[in-house]
Amino acid sequence: MAERYDCIIIGGGPAGLGASLYASRDRFRTLILEKFYPGGQINTTDRIENYPAFDNISGPDLIEKMVHQVTQFGTEIKTSAEVTALKRLDDGNIQVLTEEETFTARAAILAPGSTYRKLGVPGEEKFRRAGTGVSYCGTCDAPFFKDRRVVTVGGGNTAVEDTLHLTKFAREVILVHRRQEFRASRVLVEELMAKVNESGSNLKLRLDSVVTAIQGEGKVERTIVKNVKTGQETAIDCDGVFVFVGMVPNTDFVKGFVDLSEHGYMKCDPAYLRTKVPGVFVAGDCRVGAAMQLVTAVADGVNAVMWMKQYFRDPNWWNEGIKDELAPGGW
Amino acid sequence: MAERYDCIIIGGGPAGLGASLYASRDRFRTLILEKFYPGGQINTTDRIENYPAFDNISGPDLIEKMVHQVTQFGTEIKTSAEVTALKRLDDGNIQVLTEEETFTARAAILAPGSTYRKLGVPGEEKFRRAGTGVSYCGTCDAPFFKDRRVVTVGGGNTAVEDTLHLTKFAREVILVHRRQEFRASRVLVEELMAKVNESGSNLKLRLDSVVTAIQGEGKVERTIVKNVKTGQETAIDCDGVFVFVGMVPNTDFVKGFVDLSEHGYMKCDPAYLRTKVPGVFVAGDCRVGAAMQLVTAVADGVNAVMWMKQYFRDPNWWNEGIKDELAPGGW
Repeated sequence: MAERYDCIIIGGGPAGLGASLYASRDRFRTLILEKFYPGGQINTTDRIENYPAFDNISGPDLIEKMVHQVTQFGTEIKTSAEVTALKRLDDGNIQVLTEEETFTARAAILAPGSTYRKLGVPGEEKFRRAGTGVSYCGTCDAPFFKDRRVVTVGGGNTAVEDTLHLTKFAREVILVHRRQEFRASRVLVEELMAKVNESGSNLKLRLDSVVTAIQGEGKVERTIVKNVKTGQETAIDCDGVFVFVGMVPNTDFVKGFVDLSEHGYMKCDPAYLRTKVPGVFVAGDCRVGAAMQLVTAVADGVNAVMWMKQYFRDPNWWNEGIKDELAPGGW
Repeated sequence: MAERYDCIIIGGGPAGLGASLYASRDRFRTLILEKFYPGGQINTTDRIENYPAFDNISGPDLIEKMVHQVTQFGTEIKTSAEVTALKRLDDGNIQVLTEEETFTARAAILAPGSTYRKLGVPGEEKFRRAGTGVSYCGTCDAPFFKDRRVVTVGGGNTAVEDTLHLTKFAREVILVHRRQEFRASRVLVEELMAKVNESGSNLKLRLDSVVTAIQGEGKVERTIVKNVKTGQETAIDCDGVFVFVGMVPNTDFVKGFVDLSEHGYMKCDPAYLRTKVPGVFVAGDCRVGAAMQLVTAVADGVNAVMWMKQYFRDPNWWNEGIKDELAPGGW
């Protein structure tokens, strides 16, 4: 017989933990199903200074605080529990299947987050095994490249942040970016340029350039870089390649259950985070329109629970529009 | 000549502080105009256990951390600065007027929050002066009613929480609520009922009842309570009345500038928090559809800034719909 919960949260990252805090504090029987272990992507960040009220905290430390807080209120967390399918039953309950178990709940909150985007070039998969040279996480793997030469790829916040981080370890860092302009925030780009312009800097830029191959015998020895304006290819000798080119939403398992956008993000109404399936909400980086920030993911989880309570009070609300007297904090 | 900012945030509560962290960390010249002093309503809360990653913190302590964090990044905060009017100039800038000064900015984020709702009964205004007996904040004023008898009014989370808080101080607390059922979360209602059912409890309930008048000579001496089912009125001798019946959005100053809902909440599109005025966003408890929670208000501020950056990149985006490639955290 399937175990029955009030609320099953799929994904134990910031969105799922935010949701579970509110759900379990409200005495709803709450289960988090997490594919690996709690935290998700944020575990790979060693310095967070934009979570309001913390000047500076590491990802693992922040997650530890959140996990402690939610388990105090009774949230159950199952790790290594990968969800394979979901189904809405005739009685309105949501059935959630993992490889080994089946659960049901009155509502589900989908918060699977995103994973690293790949370059898709020859050599990338081959050298992904730990220690052979391709990495997607600067803060995780930088210490392995002490006094080595590394190539980094990307132009967003993570690319710039992690490239700067790597300069503290590597002998030399070459940042490859396909455009002249960076998408990273201004403060980060300024910090990057200041570092590049230091006398004797160990940081160099290769702009208007893309990586076309990663090569070596048994481990990374060089990267082939192509200038997109001239078409010219050059080899850069290096010991590692760090790929920082964004995220892909972890939404394969819900294909056909909820609607996905062209890029694979879950569609929902942005006011209430409802999918097309009554009782199924989304929260965090996996949804269309997510701001992709730590505190906005956490708040998505909280919002989903506030509206889940509205759904429990009145299931017919699912297809209704905004009414401001619905504001759940009203009297 | 008016001072020119990138971003003016109206209101220095959690939403405004969340916005200012992101705006100033991105090196936008950022000003908070705050009517009183930073924090808003949350300053009146002495125990917060639902801000993710803090097991337990007081409102003032949390606000102090947030203020410290945002001023480190260069946010300017003007206190006692009440905004009287806003205007969009022909060049697209937003002009913001206080009694004494005029500011302009490329964008404005309206985060004025909400204030306590009044009962609107005879005696309420008269006894509002500190110390004469009517209060809207249990955690602020409970110590003044040590060993006294107080009436509390309301049925939401704040009413139940603050009523329980008052039982630690007052000799007797009588909670008046107009219905049988409470809107407060289950865990709180359970705690309330446990307290009521303690042997020799100092907490009593008057359900299906409303306060019709607050009376006394120079200070509160009694409350008139009417049973809404029988119509019968009775007097309860007491030294104070705590009114916990919800919030009213602080939106009078934007009437005619942005659209308001029937209940005075600012209308916006829930995906991007845009008002009808290009360059003017809303965040927090003042908007239609707000979840009225601390972390959701903070995240509203962050979201508004993420979309403000999109507006700066492309002002024409203002009237466009959702496109998932717009997600600002992408590469």
